[in-house]
Amino acid sequence: MHIFHSNQIFNLELGGKLPAIDIAYHTFGNPNHDLSNVVWVCHALTADSNVADWWPHTVEYGAFLDPEKYFIICANILGSHYGSTGPLSINPETDKPWYSTFPKLTINDMVEAHRLLASHLGIGPIHALVGSSVGGFQALEWAAMEPQRFSKLIIIATDAKASPWTIAIDETQRMAIKADPTFGHDSPSAGMAGMAAARAIGLLTYRGSDGYNRTQQDNSSLPTTHRAASYQQYQGLKLCRRYNAYSYMTILDAFDTHDIGRNNGGSTRKALASINAETIVVGISSDIIFPPADMKKLAQAIPSAQYAEISSDFGHDGFLVEHKRLNQILTPFINS
Amino acid sequence: MHIFHSNQIFNLELGGKLPAIDIAYHTFGNPNHDLSNVVWVCHALTADSNVADWWPHTVEYGAFLDPEKYFIICANILGSHYGSTGPLSINPETDKPWYSTFPKLTINDMVEAHRLLASHLGIGPIHALVGSSVGGFQALEWAAMEPQRFSKLIIIATDAKASPWTIAIDETQRMAIKADPTFGHDSPSAGMAGMAAARAIGLLTYRGSDGYNRTQQDNSSLPTTHRAASYQQYQGLKLCRRYNAYSYMTILDAFDTHDIGRNNGGSTRKALASINAETIVVGISSDIIFPPADMKKLAQAIPSAQYAEISSDFGHDGFLVEHKRLNQILTPFINS
Repeated sequence: MHIFHSNQIFNLELGGKLPAIDIAYHTFGNPNHDLSNVVWVCHALTADSNVADWWPHTVEYGAFLDPEKYFIICANILGSHYGSTGPLSINPETDKPWYSTFPKLTINDMVEAHRLLASHLGIGPIHALVGSSVGGFQALEWAAMEPQRFSKLIIIATDAKASPWTIAIDETQRMAIKADPTFGHDSPSAGMAGMAAARAIGLLTYRGSDGYNRTQQDNSSLPTTHRAASYQQYQGLKLCRRYNAYSYMTILDAFDTHDIGRNNGGSTRKALASINAETIVVGISSDIIFPPADMKKLAQAIPSAQYAEISSDFGHDGFLVEHKRLNQILTPFINS
Repeated sequence: MHIFHSNQIFNLELGGKLPAIDIAYHTFGNPNHDLSNVVWVCHALTADSNVADWWPHTVEYGAFLDPEKYFIICANILGSHYGSTGPLSINPETDKPWYSTFPKLTINDMVEAHRLLASHLGIGPIHALVGSSVGGFQALEWAAMEPQRFSKLIIIATDAKASPWTIAIDETQRMAIKADPTFGHDSPSAGMAGMAAARAIGLLTYRGSDGYNRTQQDNSSLPTTHRAASYQQYQGLKLCRRYNAYSYMTILDAFDTHDIGRNNGGSTRKALASINAETIVVGISSDIIFPPADMKKLAQAIPSAQYAEISSDFGHDGFLVEHKRLNQILTPFINS
């Protein structure tokens, strides 16, 4: 992992500012002589810059993120927990962690941080921009912001604007976090019980009915603990061990304000129409957060976009699980 | 509302006991001379015995619950908040409310309370048994327990056994309630912030994406508060004004142990095969809790069952909203 430190004041879309920022990033493969082989991957909610770790079998020889062909860059998003400036970072003005005083971010701010890093790395045009879920939010925002910069755009299980449905999911997670009165305390472990519940809510929406019914059946009618219940507890705890509730809340809030139309042409539709990259939009058959019908509409709104669908029982999480199908679809697309 | 008070010790399936129980109930219409016109309605999660109130336009002249034809009975379930014995009732052994010491219930216990009330009212055979959602849990349990008692069975958006998916939804709600440390306090308002979040979780699953996207669109890209977020807050608060977290938890726990096979033939499939009533199973096209595919399987497992589907954008809540379609389907069925 590398850290890029920028000493410039970083102005935020909603009026806040960060006196300086760190951006953590990973690279895979090597840049070629004219830097024409850059692939930029934007990560989702609680992931980090190590795309080879959280997206198994995609950063591999022969896979669509082939490090022998491409110079792959993934940056930890602003507000996150994995090296980039976030609520647990020290506010240089107080010499204490930001915690609940961390300013509100938008997806646009995350993209501005990516752009700063790209400049720092001397990168101009980018061969392909890739994003799934909240990573797709960033990719669409960036592609609409700089239509000439990207040759190809890969968009998986995402949207150009947060829908009422996804905002309702976020708000419900916020309600769970705020039901825990330790959220607000100046501590890295503030709001942990609330965040565990929030994660469990997220998981319901990531997986959907088939995901649970295939893998969490009980062996008896009256088990001491139902497997599905243990699974929710376990997943909640697992996030608590590696993340913090302030970063989680910061990213949920940014999610809600996502609308690529706001800064790019005034309407979501116009912003999508301005995208110049050759685009592929991938939907997942069982995704209840970004249903295939909406993904098809997204593809229709981008001028040179094709649509592909992955049949999967894993819901939204299909984008992490179905790497075989993703490689089948995306390898010829990115190499062409 | 009537209250039936039983002074007998009420033994519970999981080993607990209630020294005495109250059962609150409503009736609509009049019994005929041979009591052959009884229709028993089982209510869902947080509803009450006033079915004419929570199920609009179903208890009406010409509707399927026609009070000019039928003697309609609906009892508030054990553990609930509306007149039947529940966690806020006085434990006669301590002279204080039960709160967190209220014993664990099952759906079977709720049905045993219905049977006690039916005996008290002198009711033998029942013309039709009706249940949606958790009401359907009770109806299926009862129909399998006394196969000869019911001429007709109406089952809407429900299941014969809690699935891993529905248990995961319940556990997530429990996690939200427990993230609120006031849950456990000896107070009717214990765990309110947690229950608000739990209700918001429930609502996501009741409505699904179309339900929100059709009704909660924002008018601007950066509203002060997103409509979908306000809606979740509002619905959470609304439940807090009328319910208590201990009853909510009691019913969630009972939900998880639902399996009509446990006490009726040893397997869910055998229990369904034993149902003798002429049955109609109604699924809702957009229901993500009890998806139509599962409802069809349920109908196939009951010997004399037919399946009908309601096309609706309202998800699971369609059973409350789509009374027109329900009346169209169910009125000829119940009258035949």
